[in-house]
Amino acid sequence: MSHPLIELDVAGSFVFALSGALAAVRARLDVFGVVVVATVTAIGGGVLRDVLLGLTPPNALRHWWYLAVPAAAAVLVFVWHPQVTRMLRPIVVLDGAGLGLFTVTGTRLALEQGLGATGACALGVLTGIGGGVIRDVLLREIPLVLRREIYALASAAGASLVVLGDRLDALNLAWQVGAAAVVFAVRVLAARRRWSAPTPRFPE
Amino acid sequence: MSHPLIELDVAGSFVFALSGALAAVRARLDVFGVVVVATVTAIGGGVLRDVLLGLTPPNALRHWWYLAVPAAAAVLVFVWHPQVTRMLRPIVVLDGAGLGLFTVTGTRLALEQGLGATGACALGVLTGIGGGVIRDVLLREIPLVLRREIYALASAAGASLVVLGDRLDALNLAWQVGAAAVVFAVRVLAARRRWSAPTPRFPE
Amino acid sequence: MSHPLIELDVAGSFVFALSGALAAVRARLDVFGVVVVATVTAIGGGVLRDVLLGLTPPNALRHWWYLAVPAAAAVLVFVWHPQVTRMLRPIVVLDGAGLGLFTVTGTRLALEQGLGATGACALGVLTGIGGGVIRDVLLREIPLVLRREIYALASAAGASLVVLGDRLDALNLAWQVGAAAVVFAVRVLAARRRWSAPTPRFPE
Repeated sequence: MSHPLIELDVAGSFVFALSGALAAVRARLDVFGVVVVATVTAIGGGVLRDVLLGLTPPNALRHWWYLAVPAAAAVLVFVWHPQVTRMLRPIVVLDGAGLGLFTVTGTRLALEQGLGATGACALGVLTGIGGGVIRDVLLREIPLVLRREIYALASAAGASLVVLGDRLDALNLAWQVGAAAVVFAVRVLAARRRWSAPTPRFPE
Repeated sequence: MSHPLIELDVAGSFVFALSGALAAVRARLDVFGVVVVATVTAIGGGVLRDVLLGLTPPNALRHWWYLAVPAAAAVLVFVWHPQVTRMLRPIVVLDGAGLGLFTVTGTRLALEQGLGATGACALGVLTGIGGGVIRDVLLREIPLVLRREIYALASAAGASLVVLGDRLDALNLAWQVGAAAVVFAVRVLAARRRWSAPTPRFPE
Repeated sequence: MSHPLIELDVAGSFVFALSGALAAVRARLDVFGVVVVATVTAIGGGVLRDVLLGLTPPNALRHWWYLAVPAAAAVLVFVWHPQVTRMLRPIVVLDGAGLGLFTVTGTRLALEQGLGATGACALGVLTGIGGGVIRDVLLREIPLVLRREIYALASAAGASLVVLGDRLDALNLAWQVGAAAVVFAVRVLAARRRWSAPTPRFPE
């Protein structure tokens, strides 16, 4: 994996690890449970991406910092969670950042491996939502992606931007960070302002 | 993947997508949540099959119709769910059809990849039950496969028929559709007539 | 996979199958549900290990005894569960044995495939906890790994011992069985004596 991609990947792992650790602290897990949830949240989306693309063993198992970063984030949150929690709705913010960063690395790696536009977008969305879904299933919460807020749509928008950048031959680091920022902004604004998509109508 | 197999695969995706979308509508998810659940239900079993056989990237990411079909099914159900629901126990019927079709494609592809009879049956059952299990875990319901009705047995019967057809050198399209129909019939009859397998006995 | 490894692997499948079957019996599943849960608990960790290392199709699908052993264990438990249950906290004991055996095979296979110390330990822990997590998610229980008892730590200790043995060029069968026994002993003692790791502190 080339340089800018790995930086985005490690940044995504870090924020997802914080979100996983915070959710685990709220569920009153012990320190090792917090480390486990933080780690699988951090590496889940990337491992899914690498396995689906046949790039095994996945990056997360080949470079020790993929595991050291979540462990450090978990200990950080374990000790200072009251300070972290004081920020407004921190899990949504951290999860949104991870969603953006992993959407971008997933889509870009899928394009590099020769997938078409639809497949690359789908893999980008799976990479983006994977870690958070695993975190929520382990903690027996309804996955964020299924709650009534713009979530998969934000990720799909970012994935489409990456595909567009690739087609325009403009997919440099700035474009990728921009695409991740779009995902983040759409997701966090939707959560703050409670934007919601239409729900099914039931006859009286 | 050769021609008849891909047709059964897309048909299985379509019915599993309908079942996923209907379950998501009942859980009052928004339109994007319905699309996500429909898609992972539709492609889950096939992706699991391809990853376990080392055929990466999975078919579902290489052909856009694997993703377009579930999306279309999701929108269809989102708009017309009262009409779809009017049919008797539609999730069981659609799930049974998906179970049959994916059991057949999973078993056949495993045989083509050189697995033995036991391994091919096991992979067929995993392919058949995979999508539905993911749907039920995401929606926090008890997986259909674990409820007290004939489910895994129906899938195992169909997988055995595919292996038998292969050993007899008779595995044409008609045989495969027949095996899928057997799974469907056993499953739906069991659900309608509440056939059940023995449950454990507990001493007084 | 060389000889001693496969023996540990089959032994691990057997004890995990017993733990899965017992949990399924307690959840009042029927006989086929018991076989399904026992089988995925037994092969889950090993399949995850093989897929992550790119060794597809996984061992569990290539050798029929990987599937026959869990099926036999499931039937055994289905019929004689009162006798099995009479042992003290049998799920914890069986789960601890499976945790130890799979931690060892996962770590060793990862080292053979060229992963570094950190990656091999992580893969060993994932292999160890994988089957039990799948069992608990399917039965909608809080995964054992997240409860307030030493679990992931026991597995990590065993994985480190395997890496140490490899570095000392002393990784024979006795060393591996010893490492599995350490995991088992730490895990079962922690559960019996209710040892617990620190939990997060919340300000008043």
